[in-house]
Amino acid sequence: MSERYDVAIVGSGPAGLSAAINCKIRNKNIILFGNENLSNKVSKAPKINNYLGIPGIKGEELKEAFKKHIDSMDISITPERINAIYAIGDYFALMVNEKMYEAKSVILATGMEYGKALKGEEEFLGKGVGYCATCDAPLYKGKKVAIIAHNKKEEEEANFVKELAETVYYIPMYKDIENLREDIIVVRENPVEIIGNDMVRSLKLSNTTLEVDGVFVLKDSISPDQLMPGLKITDGHVEVDRQMATNLKGCFAAGDCTGKPYQYIKSSGEGLVAALNAVSYLNNKK
Amino acid sequence: MSERYDVAIVGSGPAGLSAAINCKIRNKNIILFGNENLSNKVSKAPKINNYLGIPGIKGEELKEAFKKHIDSMDISITPERINAIYAIGDYFALMVNEKMYEAKSVILATGMEYGKALKGEEEFLGKGVGYCATCDAPLYKGKKVAIIAHNKKEEEEANFVKELAETVYYIPMYKDIENLREDIIVVRENPVEIIGNDMVRSLKLSNTTLEVDGVFVLKDSISPDQLMPGLKITDGHVEVDRQMATNLKGCFAAGDCTGKPYQYIKSSGEGLVAALNAVSYLNNKK
Repeated sequence: MSERYDVAIVGSGPAGLSAAINCKIRNKNIILFGNENLSNKVSKAPKINNYLGIPGIKGEELKEAFKKHIDSMDISITPERINAIYAIGDYFALMVNEKMYEAKSVILATGMEYGKALKGEEEFLGKGVGYCATCDAPLYKGKKVAIIAHNKKEEEEANFVKELAETVYYIPMYKDIENLREDIIVVRENPVEIIGNDMVRSLKLSNTTLEVDGVFVLKDSISPDQLMPGLKITDGHVEVDRQMATNLKGCFAAGDCTGKPYQYIKSSGEGLVAALNAVSYLNNKK
Repeated sequence: MSERYDVAIVGSGPAGLSAAINCKIRNKNIILFGNENLSNKVSKAPKINNYLGIPGIKGEELKEAFKKHIDSMDISITPERINAIYAIGDYFALMVNEKMYEAKSVILATGMEYGKALKGEEEFLGKGVGYCATCDAPLYKGKKVAIIAHNKKEEEEANFVKELAETVYYIPMYKDIENLREDIIVVRENPVEIIGNDMVRSLKLSNTTLEVDGVFVLKDSISPDQLMPGLKITDGHVEVDRQMATNLKGCFAAGDCTGKPYQYIKSSGEGLVAALNAVSYLNNKK
């Protein structure tokens, strides 16, 4: 039986981290999903002048300050990518490939770095397009699959898919390939469009078109509307009220995914608000 | 002719300071009204654990970090208390006693430390109750006035009122009186109620009742609804949307005055959001 957490926080940017420290201060049992590097956006920032209290700090240093803060409170990051979240009665199921985590409430802090969806990506989601190679691989036994990978950690997923699929095309969106099976075909082109009728038929790249039965798009994060069925989105952002509550009871959101301005201290502030409202949601449930 | 600022920020807690640094970064001409000590609430806090990036900091140290930040950006605080703000067509008039400041937009960051209004205070506001002793003193020439003072800096105002009024009762809400005229009558009792019919007639204290024509309530800050006619208040807080815009065009608000949770990083985040939206309001006006 899996443990049911009080709060699952998805994202390790300032919003997610601020939510985590505030839930922890309120003695909630949390799980924080994210990146061990916390946030690429933060660590790549050249200089930040408007994080009140920490003038003129480099992104890398701000990341270190965040890391020190969560370390000082014994908060660890679970470096897994959530593929889907389902509201199931009075709790949430968070899927990581074949694994399921359970939580009584959820705070979405996914950021906005998942990029634009590919043409056809949303249309064929679940009809040949997937975000979780290891979960859907069995569907492609003996078939042809393309994997668009934004990160070298996807190589492992590709290797697993190749154990089942007949042909695996690997389209890396990064530079150096590290550990990919030799029988996987690497195609260094930019993806343009996913084409099909009822189901995916092909993936159009900048120069070639690959005939495939399935396309996996493996990104660091998935846009919240693709992640969570039923979540209300307005103008590309998760709709929240001043309590950072979404339209789904027990589900809160914070940071860039809830709207502009995309600024660190706005995210940190919202993470706190989401956390305290999640805590009061949990306390009222009892 | 007085200078017309781009943005007037009222309050020097985290919300006001964060608003100030962000307006300044966007090259706006700002005036920041507040306390040279920044925020009593911050500096008195024993320890703050949830300001992401600065773990386990004492209030006094956090205040110093804030001070360093605004100093590094050449932001100074105008240590005056705004008594009233009027929306006048396309700009705002901010009154400090007899003085007027003008600004194209306003960010309210007044906090929530102004305390509860006295019984009768709101009812008789403008009918014998005032917040600005030096501006209204001429109305009480040869009359009797009570001054409820929350801070020793009000002694100077009381001394000025006594030059005109016949009798001045001084009700200090603090301990040591420093520099009060000897012909002012000090009454060490708690104020209970302001009584009158059309106009103020008396001030009821815990033991005595003073017959007076006017009552000045001199606090460090005034609640936003008393400060700004027409401002929409809901449940005791300035009503704002996700852009921190109030119901008055060009007027934004941030921090504790906009609602719970009363937490520093929430205020800092909201100050940024209010600032960037004030900036875009100004840019769209051109």
